[in-house]
Amino acid sequence: MSSESDAQARAEHVVHGMLARDEFSRWLGIDVCEIAPGRSRCRLTVRPEMVNGFGAAHGGIAYSLADSALAFACNTNGRVTVAIDNSIGYPVAVAVGDVLTAIAVEESATARLGYYAVTVRNQHDTTVAIFRGTVYRTKKDHNIT
Amino acid sequence: MSSESDAQARAEHVVHGMLARDEFSRWLGIDVCEIAPGRSRCRLTVRPEMVNGFGAAHGGIAYSLADSALAFACNTNGRVTVAIDNSIGYPVAVAVGDVLTAIAVEESATARLGYYAVTVRNQHDTTVAIFRGTVYRTKKDHNIT
Amino acid sequence: MSSESDAQARAEHVVHGMLARDEFSRWLGIDVCEIAPGRSRCRLTVRPEMVNGFGAAHGGIAYSLADSALAFACNTNGRVTVAIDNSIGYPVAVAVGDVLTAIAVEESATARLGYYAVTVRNQHDTTVAIFRGTVYRTKKDHNIT
Amino acid sequence: MSSESDAQARAEHVVHGMLARDEFSRWLGIDVCEIAPGRSRCRLTVRPEMVNGFGAAHGGIAYSLADSALAFACNTNGRVTVAIDNSIGYPVAVAVGDVLTAIAVEESATARLGYYAVTVRNQHDTTVAIFRGTVYRTKKDHNIT
Repeated sequence: MSSESDAQARAEHVVHGMLARDEFSRWLGIDVCEIAPGRSRCRLTVRPEMVNGFGAAHGGIAYSLADSALAFACNTNGRVTVAIDNSIGYPVAVAVGDVLTAIAVEESATARLGYYAVTVRNQHDTTVAIFRGTVYRTKKDHNIT
Repeated sequence: MSSESDAQARAEHVVHGMLARDEFSRWLGIDVCEIAPGRSRCRLTVRPEMVNGFGAAHGGIAYSLADSALAFACNTNGRVTVAIDNSIGYPVAVAVGDVLTAIAVEESATARLGYYAVTVRNQHDTTVAIFRGTVYRTKKDHNIT
Repeated sequence: MSSESDAQARAEHVVHGMLARDEFSRWLGIDVCEIAPGRSRCRLTVRPEMVNGFGAAHGGIAYSLADSALAFACNTNGRVTVAIDNSIGYPVAVAVGDVLTAIAVEESATARLGYYAVTVRNQHDTTVAIFRGTVYRTKKDHNIT
Repeated sequence: MSSESDAQARAEHVVHGMLARDEFSRWLGIDVCEIAPGRSRCRLTVRPEMVNGFGAAHGGIAYSLADSALAFACNTNGRVTVAIDNSIGYPVAVAVGDVLTAIAVEESATARLGYYAVTVRNQHDTTVAIFRGTVYRTKKDHNIT
């Protein structure tokens, strides 16, 4: 698969397969809005059962959305790829009812490693989380039949 | 409140109040096993609805456990304190049925900032996540009546 | 100072003052190519005394360039601002003779905190380091006379 | 080499070889106080040419000390190993004349990846930097003749 449309088809196929098993992304209500090679855009709406001890969205919610967006983006090339090290900053609090959109973009990739930036914004286009992920490409392929 | 037992009572009171509102920690099934000033130990069991697209525990599960343990530990001094920047490394995958224990410890604290290390281990005492959190102390007190 | 040109004048004034004292940036040979509010672009050439035990540039070189670029960018608003937490990924090794350019950009800022992304590229425009910095704004002003 | 004393001899041999080429650690004045498998302790004294634009030690100094300590610790097993992602927090400023000691400890290791914690303290045993490093083990061996 070397053409652009093949790469796009593979990306969609891989993410479709991942989504079918991804129970936690389903609980989070993650909607995969866009998939392209090395890139994804995902969205969720913050529900009452996602709050922390201060009544704001738990830090794990924006993190998990970003981590899912990363997982989809970095597996689009067809190799089973896993996060090894992530960091996240929280400039602005998130409230129940907020609609969060995460955009994951590949910043650099070598044979075994990839570096991604994921930005999470709310419905007012304010950045609420800034995430950076480092991933490891295994030698195992996604089964694409 | 200056004595050791007062600090312990305050720590427990604050965390009790936070837990009462923390819906996401409740969904995760987090059990707060130990609270002390600047420190917490929390546990959860990985359930089938917590898996990612590879059938392993989603990265957000160990992260959220660590983030909750951090939140409890860093609020024990009675000031409303929030995470501003966290990082996490994942040396070992986590499976459904695994029992994860997170221990959060204060490594350094100034008037406005705190630095915490959180280690997450499974039931075999293997380290599955290594988390570092930076927190900001607001000027607002927890209401302790 | 509210106009755009005032903000630019203040940015240049602050960085000029910082550079006058910054002995380590001088040793590194850092050239500040561009300053604007919340932004900087800095450059250095890797010298033989900057290598590590493998003969490549020491990880501290790209880091220090990025950290200087961050310091200049985040102090442009006239408040003494310090880094509290940084992370860096190294996708590609750096060699003696390479010319590194760091671009620091503000991604988000609140009253007390700021989040910056710094990208370091070599003379072939390849990304060699991806840096994210979190800064704390003190209440102290830069003396601007 | 399977015995404990062989592992120690290999660790010392590898670090000795790395130090012979490490020009930047030499400029920093790093003294390797202790080497053991998966562990190192390194020290430096902050000199006037190491300050930043505020007259304190540049953030790159504590970082570079920690990064060198990490490099020595993670190469002790005889495989060429490189840092891929580091993070650092700065709880306390460092001044000229301060003596910094970094202790690097392996927290977890798999076949290809390692996770290290590095703590940097000053001469008063105050923690001035908290560093976490993720490393990648190449398949190349250090030449041990």
